[in-house]
Amino acid sequence: MRRDLFTPDHESFRELVRTFVEKQVVPNYVGWEKEGKLPRELFAEMGELGMLGIALPEEHGGAGLRDYRYNVILQEEAYRAQVTLGTVRTQLDVILPYFLEYANAEQRARWFPGLANGTLLTAVAMTEPGTGSDLAGMRTSAVRDGDEYVLNGAKTFITGGLLADLVIVVARTSTDPENRRAGLTLLVVEDGMPGFERGRMLEKMGCKVQDTMELSFTDVRVPARNRLGEEGAAFGYLGHNLPQERLTVAVGSVAQARAAIAATIDYTKERKAFGTPVASFQNTKFELAAMSAEVEAAQTMIDRAVLDLVDGVLSGADAARVKLFCTETQARVVDRCLQLFGGYGYMMEYPIARLYTDARVARIYAGTSEVMKMIVARDLGLS
Amino acid sequence: MRRDLFTPDHESFRELVRTFVEKQVVPNYVGWEKEGKLPRELFAEMGELGMLGIALPEEHGGAGLRDYRYNVILQEEAYRAQVTLGTVRTQLDVILPYFLEYANAEQRARWFPGLANGTLLTAVAMTEPGTGSDLAGMRTSAVRDGDEYVLNGAKTFITGGLLADLVIVVARTSTDPENRRAGLTLLVVEDGMPGFERGRMLEKMGCKVQDTMELSFTDVRVPARNRLGEEGAAFGYLGHNLPQERLTVAVGSVAQARAAIAATIDYTKERKAFGTPVASFQNTKFELAAMSAEVEAAQTMIDRAVLDLVDGVLSGADAARVKLFCTETQARVVDRCLQLFGGYGYMMEYPIARLYTDARVARIYAGTSEVMKMIVARDLGLS
Amino acid sequence: MRRDLFTPDHESFRELVRTFVEKQVVPNYVGWEKEGKLPRELFAEMGELGMLGIALPEEHGGAGLRDYRYNVILQEEAYRAQVTLGTVRTQLDVILPYFLEYANAEQRARWFPGLANGTLLTAVAMTEPGTGSDLAGMRTSAVRDGDEYVLNGAKTFITGGLLADLVIVVARTSTDPENRRAGLTLLVVEDGMPGFERGRMLEKMGCKVQDTMELSFTDVRVPARNRLGEEGAAFGYLGHNLPQERLTVAVGSVAQARAAIAATIDYTKERKAFGTPVASFQNTKFELAAMSAEVEAAQTMIDRAVLDLVDGVLSGADAARVKLFCTETQARVVDRCLQLFGGYGYMMEYPIARLYTDARVARIYAGTSEVMKMIVARDLGLS
Amino acid sequence: MRRDLFTPDHESFRELVRTFVEKQVVPNYVGWEKEGKLPRELFAEMGELGMLGIALPEEHGGAGLRDYRYNVILQEEAYRAQVTLGTVRTQLDVILPYFLEYANAEQRARWFPGLANGTLLTAVAMTEPGTGSDLAGMRTSAVRDGDEYVLNGAKTFITGGLLADLVIVVARTSTDPENRRAGLTLLVVEDGMPGFERGRMLEKMGCKVQDTMELSFTDVRVPARNRLGEEGAAFGYLGHNLPQERLTVAVGSVAQARAAIAATIDYTKERKAFGTPVASFQNTKFELAAMSAEVEAAQTMIDRAVLDLVDGVLSGADAARVKLFCTETQARVVDRCLQLFGGYGYMMEYPIARLYTDARVARIYAGTSEVMKMIVARDLGLS
Repeated sequence: MRRDLFTPDHESFRELVRTFVEKQVVPNYVGWEKEGKLPRELFAEMGELGMLGIALPEEHGGAGLRDYRYNVILQEEAYRAQVTLGTVRTQLDVILPYFLEYANAEQRARWFPGLANGTLLTAVAMTEPGTGSDLAGMRTSAVRDGDEYVLNGAKTFITGGLLADLVIVVARTSTDPENRRAGLTLLVVEDGMPGFERGRMLEKMGCKVQDTMELSFTDVRVPARNRLGEEGAAFGYLGHNLPQERLTVAVGSVAQARAAIAATIDYTKERKAFGTPVASFQNTKFELAAMSAEVEAAQTMIDRAVLDLVDGVLSGADAARVKLFCTETQARVVDRCLQLFGGYGYMMEYPIARLYTDARVARIYAGTSEVMKMIVARDLGLS
Repeated sequence: MRRDLFTPDHESFRELVRTFVEKQVVPNYVGWEKEGKLPRELFAEMGELGMLGIALPEEHGGAGLRDYRYNVILQEEAYRAQVTLGTVRTQLDVILPYFLEYANAEQRARWFPGLANGTLLTAVAMTEPGTGSDLAGMRTSAVRDGDEYVLNGAKTFITGGLLADLVIVVARTSTDPENRRAGLTLLVVEDGMPGFERGRMLEKMGCKVQDTMELSFTDVRVPARNRLGEEGAAFGYLGHNLPQERLTVAVGSVAQARAAIAATIDYTKERKAFGTPVASFQNTKFELAAMSAEVEAAQTMIDRAVLDLVDGVLSGADAARVKLFCTETQARVVDRCLQLFGGYGYMMEYPIARLYTDARVARIYAGTSEVMKMIVARDLGLS
Repeated sequence: MRRDLFTPDHESFRELVRTFVEKQVVPNYVGWEKEGKLPRELFAEMGELGMLGIALPEEHGGAGLRDYRYNVILQEEAYRAQVTLGTVRTQLDVILPYFLEYANAEQRARWFPGLANGTLLTAVAMTEPGTGSDLAGMRTSAVRDGDEYVLNGAKTFITGGLLADLVIVVARTSTDPENRRAGLTLLVVEDGMPGFERGRMLEKMGCKVQDTMELSFTDVRVPARNRLGEEGAAFGYLGHNLPQERLTVAVGSVAQARAAIAATIDYTKERKAFGTPVASFQNTKFELAAMSAEVEAAQTMIDRAVLDLVDGVLSGADAARVKLFCTETQARVVDRCLQLFGGYGYMMEYPIARLYTDARVARIYAGTSEVMKMIVARDLGLS
Repeated sequence: MRRDLFTPDHESFRELVRTFVEKQVVPNYVGWEKEGKLPRELFAEMGELGMLGIALPEEHGGAGLRDYRYNVILQEEAYRAQVTLGTVRTQLDVILPYFLEYANAEQRARWFPGLANGTLLTAVAMTEPGTGSDLAGMRTSAVRDGDEYVLNGAKTFITGGLLADLVIVVARTSTDPENRRAGLTLLVVEDGMPGFERGRMLEKMGCKVQDTMELSFTDVRVPARNRLGEEGAAFGYLGHNLPQERLTVAVGSVAQARAAIAATIDYTKERKAFGTPVASFQNTKFELAAMSAEVEAAQTMIDRAVLDLVDGVLSGADAARVKLFCTETQARVVDRCLQLFGGYGYMMEYPIARLYTDARVARIYAGTSEVMKMIVARDLGLS
């Protein structure tokens, strides 16, 4: 069906991204997977092409376009080519909003140019071993000492932690037991600060180009000027970006599901079984048709949600509905597609295998399907 | 999420329909179910309120608004109140388009006023015993004899056949074995024509207010001026309205699924099990939340498709995707909702039981889910 | 796969039942559905053939075989012919065990001959309006007054209440708020006792030959000699028969699912679409094959559970697993089968429509799927 | 429910295996995964403990027990410990039967001792690049030349090819185009024969301890005395062992599903979310209870099928039903279990991630779910 959310400007950008992905990403992707990370150069190249600074102000090297549709296009074009942009997505969709919303003038001058040109890489460190994403149980602490905070604690599941120049750390600055939410603050730890150490890289089932790490902080002295936003305000900040963060996962899920279907159509047309193309079996047709209908539903939902987000009216509950539905759809679709590849679907050299293992995390991160259901149930007045 | 397809005019109409449904339909509905049909008066009342003639030209008593969104509102408001408009829907969404597209000036003058004011009731007779909806196998024949056609054959599954004043019959006017599709013609048989007989009413699982009949035609002499459109052109005519017909089913499915969810939320909040409201169990919350997300996806898909239809760009394949997804979603949702009613869900006095038995046909009529998959598969280039 | 639970004696009984069902049940079944009940004569005929007294002692006209496999055969043969034995099943599988376990010598002499020869029909009245099957909340009371109990209360969802000569009523004989379970007692109310009244028949979605009623008791004076078992012991009695009661539902579900598959194979072989038998489409084959595998799994599970029950080792948790799995399987199977009938599947004259509407209650009665999950979860040590 | 297929002898063997797995397999398993293969020593150790020769004749160092239940125990105990026996399973369940059935006296004397003591490792080479498992399209050829066959061709997806001392190669010995099935023969190629080369190892999604390779044969001169069975008879031979081969996959699937459930129960009891054990959420309980019921059904089906196989009456269609149902069940179960681990489920250090990636092949190898459906449909008389 029609998609009417993109303007000609968006479509020009899409062309740019498509070419870039084909030339710079696809040929190198398997190598990056083996290394378990993206190269810094990729960020620099994307920065040079203006892909990283779209939302940043023009005065700091950006394009001044706070329009989430550009982010959508980046994801769609990567998945279209059966690859991902790994931590680039995290940087643009999850982390950049914190800088855009809460950085003060001095911080903007200091960091935005590097964010725009791809020389400053970022991560956000929220989850802790044991407590998961339950903010109320967070134990990393930052104690004010003059112009500095003394930071201590351990974080895990940090996407992009390996190369990050700036890590936004969520830390507890007040230990008032009455209000465990009010005591959280965002501090930007810089690479090289004494006491900041990278732990082991976690081996994941998929998403191999995207490093995931443990980080530890031992008496790291973070200058107060590296505090992002107000002291004690992090809980609200973290919630504010959640709809976009979840929509981002959903956008990726639908684009990956589409890629899986496209790859499966191609494969089944070519591949023969019992002397006939697999695509000519009614089962193949029905499977792909059913998936096509589901993904079309998911796509219309995404498009609606993207416009709602752009207009600032996407509620947390609707973002949860979108993430829940789109990631569950992706899971079903990718599994059914892989099945149509037969034994080849189990071989990592076929992109469908990567799409399958990559997909498994979508129902988990940025809030599990179960958490999404809790949010939606609350919105339905059930409690 | 936002729905942006309705204008203030549509919303005024919605108010009108909502009041009408509450006052005229809901109190009488169980009685109509027992009788197995709607009363003629309902059509007259709706005609008087201008609900039947919206799409008909002003010169013949209509409002001259060929805008499918009014049809959507009629369905949505009926289902919102957990009832249906039975054969009214068939008349407006399935049959009226044939008259609007193919009636000539004389026929318009003759029939449109009655269609607008609710005194002319209609049916379309396509399916035959044994051959189903396979047009190529259709055996009802119409042989030209002077100014008349002599019509012979039997039809089944005729919605609204019981009260129909005008029945559009699909008949074979050419027996050229080379092209069995080219020989089909639409003839309007009028109530009372000699040789036109109503057979038995079929007992259905649900959709009780909507009569379904067998009709037979024995040497019925149909005047040639009752031919709708060109001789031999019916195959194309029948295909032309299919997207709207299928979208209509999908619109109903989503509205019914919403009604089921709303009823279940109300019920589970009130009903207690083991001393606690059923709505407070996590299973109840998760079930309803998951359904809410699926139905929201279906709704965005419907809204997209309605606008595409209004703008004349809804393809047959996309209509098939929409019907497939929305009716399958309805089935899952209504079943899960009923389960949350426990034993009461099995009692016909609870609307959820009606929603359940009504729903089962949606995956079947206007083309089964299997036929939808065939259409979509063809669109995907699989063959 | 092999079924090794039946002996030649069982198989002889199967022959007897098969003939009986074909001659006495199938030809009359639609009529009974319209009347909403089984005729008393059916019980008498079955009594005469020895089908009702198998488990009853020989001295009272029974065969003295407490072997649940005979009950299994009765169900299997009825469903094989696409009918049910309605309240006969309730009598034999659900109610008779109470008489067998708890009737004293005098009661045995008084009631067993009638139970064996089909002149005494029974019901059990447990559920109350509002409180459902939560025994702790039961409000029907029986106050001892000399040699009688004075019974007051209302019951609903009473299967077989219309014709019952003996109704086992669960009533509260102690109002000690400390132990609301300990105060429940079974009293046998006889047809005609003053104050015992039948209320309205509930209209169900399916199971039409099986009447379901409301019953009310106003100062009914029940002689103490009609008390079944000990005063205050009903809670334990009710739990004791639950595994068999649940297994009974599961046995029926699997037999009905098999019947649905058999009917669908027959239909799709005969019925043509686009000039080819529906059975020759790959989708039809794959659907039926998948269902066949699921039902085979359910059958092996049933056979295992039946032997465990016969040997007295079927746990409540395993009975819950069996009911949960088999009824959920039935639901999926019957729905998919109906779909393969197309429009005919929605017509009540096709047995598949009856199998569909009958099936919906299986996941609900004798404990919903949700209750089964609670029981299994407890068995897994989750709490 | 009760499992009654094992005797005390089986249970003693189970103890032996359990200890062996815990001591020799579990501590080394991650290392073997990294290497992508099992060490030869494992075979030697298992040989020494008598685990490899159970089915081999006593005269050649075996125990002379052709009882598939021992194979079942080996699998069950490995999966119980969340590991696999990789190519050991292939050797015992898939390959050994060919030697047992078709080796002549000389071959038995030559090979059986080595098979029993674990010094001869095996593989079977059937699938070819491009043609998959369609035997009729097989192109590897063996041309008789005196006392030898000259073998040419390429094979892929060869489990255990890396270490195999003996490779049973399916080759075409007749090119009669009229009967492409009759021309297939089994030849045993030995490690070191000139022209026999190992190609690259295929990188699979899971099953990491089990190497999968490409093999090529260029003018390999295989002595005629290495022919297994009759010339031209391989098609029948290959079909003969299929029921056991498929049952083997199903046995593994059910055992792995059980392991997943056990691991998830442990994890959710320990892990807290929002301050409560995850196991205490109703969703967790319901998910695990539903899975427990499904797996119990699968287990009863397995146990029935194993006894049927042992008694020589397991049909090909029933083996297909078992594989279809059990592998589909495994897939659903492992996916739902992983979800309950949240982010940790995506980390390869948690066995659930391995269970998930290992499981994906079960619906594919030894015949895909689609092939199973074809077989079952044929058995249902659909064609």
